[in-house]
Amino acid sequence: MSDSRPRIGITMGDPTGVGPEIIVQALSECSAHEACLSLVIGRAAILEQAARLVKRDILITPIDSIEQAEEIWRSTSNQPHPSILCLQVGDPRIEQVIAPKSAIQVDALGGQAAYDSLVAATELCRDHRLDAIVTAPLHKVALHRAGHDWPGHTELLAHLCGVPDSSMMLYLPPGKPRHGGRMGLGVVHVTLHCALRDVFSQLTIESILETIALADGFFRRLSSAMELNEVPRIAVAALNPHGGESGRFGDEEMTIIAPAVERARANGIDVVGPLPVDTLMSAAADGRYDAVVAMYHDQGHIALKLLDMFEAVNITLGLPILRTSVAHGTGHDIAWQGIAEWGGMTQAIMVAAQLVKGGAADTLCRPLASARHPGVVDHI
Amino acid sequence: MSDSRPRIGITMGDPTGVGPEIIVQALSECSAHEACLSLVIGRAAILEQAARLVKRDILITPIDSIEQAEEIWRSTSNQPHPSILCLQVGDPRIEQVIAPKSAIQVDALGGQAAYDSLVAATELCRDHRLDAIVTAPLHKVALHRAGHDWPGHTELLAHLCGVPDSSMMLYLPPGKPRHGGRMGLGVVHVTLHCALRDVFSQLTIESILETIALADGFFRRLSSAMELNEVPRIAVAALNPHGGESGRFGDEEMTIIAPAVERARANGIDVVGPLPVDTLMSAAADGRYDAVVAMYHDQGHIALKLLDMFEAVNITLGLPILRTSVAHGTGHDIAWQGIAEWGGMTQAIMVAAQLVKGGAADTLCRPLASARHPGVVDHI
Repeated sequence: MSDSRPRIGITMGDPTGVGPEIIVQALSECSAHEACLSLVIGRAAILEQAARLVKRDILITPIDSIEQAEEIWRSTSNQPHPSILCLQVGDPRIEQVIAPKSAIQVDALGGQAAYDSLVAATELCRDHRLDAIVTAPLHKVALHRAGHDWPGHTELLAHLCGVPDSSMMLYLPPGKPRHGGRMGLGVVHVTLHCALRDVFSQLTIESILETIALADGFFRRLSSAMELNEVPRIAVAALNPHGGESGRFGDEEMTIIAPAVERARANGIDVVGPLPVDTLMSAAADGRYDAVVAMYHDQGHIALKLLDMFEAVNITLGLPILRTSVAHGTGHDIAWQGIAEWGGMTQAIMVAAQLVKGGAADTLCRPLASARHPGVVDHI
Repeated sequence: MSDSRPRIGITMGDPTGVGPEIIVQALSECSAHEACLSLVIGRAAILEQAARLVKRDILITPIDSIEQAEEIWRSTSNQPHPSILCLQVGDPRIEQVIAPKSAIQVDALGGQAAYDSLVAATELCRDHRLDAIVTAPLHKVALHRAGHDWPGHTELLAHLCGVPDSSMMLYLPPGKPRHGGRMGLGVVHVTLHCALRDVFSQLTIESILETIALADGFFRRLSSAMELNEVPRIAVAALNPHGGESGRFGDEEMTIIAPAVERARANGIDVVGPLPVDTLMSAAADGRYDAVVAMYHDQGHIALKLLDMFEAVNITLGLPILRTSVAHGTGHDIAWQGIAEWGGMTQAIMVAAQLVKGGAADTLCRPLASARHPGVVDHI
């Protein structure tokens, strides 16, 4: 009998960070197992060390191929406490770098391990052997030392998927105060990993319009997955303080943002703005909007991390695959001490599973990517 | 017998906004009367209308001079429910503009009324007839229509006090979750009312250093007023995402902010940074720092308004007078309906009273202004 649970691949991220321990913690909880069939992509020996560290009595099963995972999923789907499957990927030398409860340095081996894990997971997802991937954090300096010079996961994923770019959404699932409305709260960024000084040249009517469409697309499909039948309410943040005050403090609101909002409205999207971002974020947290389109990294990140740093889920929009992630970093200062919060990893898995189960994996990503970058998706 | 309570002047702000009703509400509460001797500066007839609107049974007493207020303060200091004193200032035609529960337009008369009220209050404070002023919001378009072209209260106050500039602090008093530590949480802005594009040219080692010193000075004096004997812990926000990542996303952290922090440390200030602002704000909310130095308006405002829009107090640092304010605007969309939140006005009054009673009015402002702008304060 085939198991209908979503098949979710979890990258181990940089093993010298908090990734292994938060993965073991999250996968030791029943909710994750009820929600999906999971497969960690990395090194089983490291997960074993992490399990000992956090005192979780769970079996780690190393496997060598996706077919082996599929066979185990078929045969053990009714077991209440299955083991953690780990697809063995990457250089085993990383296993020697880990030493619990001691300071672990940012290391090229860790960067390479994160890279290898992500490449393998992305490929399995593009080949439809996985329905979604959930990523543990990587460290950019380590990635750089390993010879992979990407500003972040988001840009690297776009490259691996063969799309010219993608947008980062930070998402708070619903159910807690100030997590937005019935669908939660999302913040999508028009620009991301660039100097604040370079934001201005990257903001165009087109880039804002595309980001509005991605936010709308995400929440339309989430609404469908949650059987809510709601039209997403999108708000677009202003760039300048007080929304520029009619040109007194900058004119991007009038020349770029307002025209993008008008065009999105003409396309049938329920969107308002530009609105002064300080009061907008508060209104959105209280549920007035489902998504906020932020002009730059910190505009969105200050708000979402302040609202709930450990429950926020990072979702990449505009990819041909579904990818969620924790919103925090590798936490090298607290890694391998057994004290890292793992609620974000649990949420990232649960949100991915929900989007897949709602049939969203097929509808969320590819049509958006196609619409955004016509012609590109056909070739990959 | 002289009454030792601080003498606090409250400007009515733009009477077409929420100012009058939040003033009447705040001054109808015993706590404000216990904390200070208060005097509203504006039009008594408008306060009467506001009192009827919010159904507060409190007498409004129009007076014509500060001497008359002083006489009343002396004679009625033991009465449990004194009236609201209103020093009659400004054009009485504004009284005809107000019509409860109907839409009230932004109007030059409202802008002029706010201006007149602020000028009179500032003068009384500079003449030591008042210990502090608390301001209700004004509307910049109305101010502009009345012929006064200022980007905000903060800049206008600097002008009225004869100092070249001042810094805006948003402050959350302690006592609630995520309001910082024992002294609350302050965010001081290096730049304020300017286009985001213009922030870069205004950020200098000197402007950041001065703002760090103002934040430190405020919390040193607050610590003294609260008898805590704590050394303020200051954190400085980075400008670029992830703190610039060692120059990958901008170099202002290395060329401007870090040198300013180093100089401040050399001056004996307990200050760290630059730190990535998204996680910094969360740490500060949890009490790790007393003050955050923000590089631009929205960096500070997103965080503080999200944490508590209605309890945040706006405090101007670097003036020769003590001024606090609500952190919200005129709220023309909800004004004169009797629904405006007044907690911010109560907090602004209580914080001003606390700072004065702690002996801070003399020590907080003038030495800071002197240190920042040598020679200027002597002439006013």
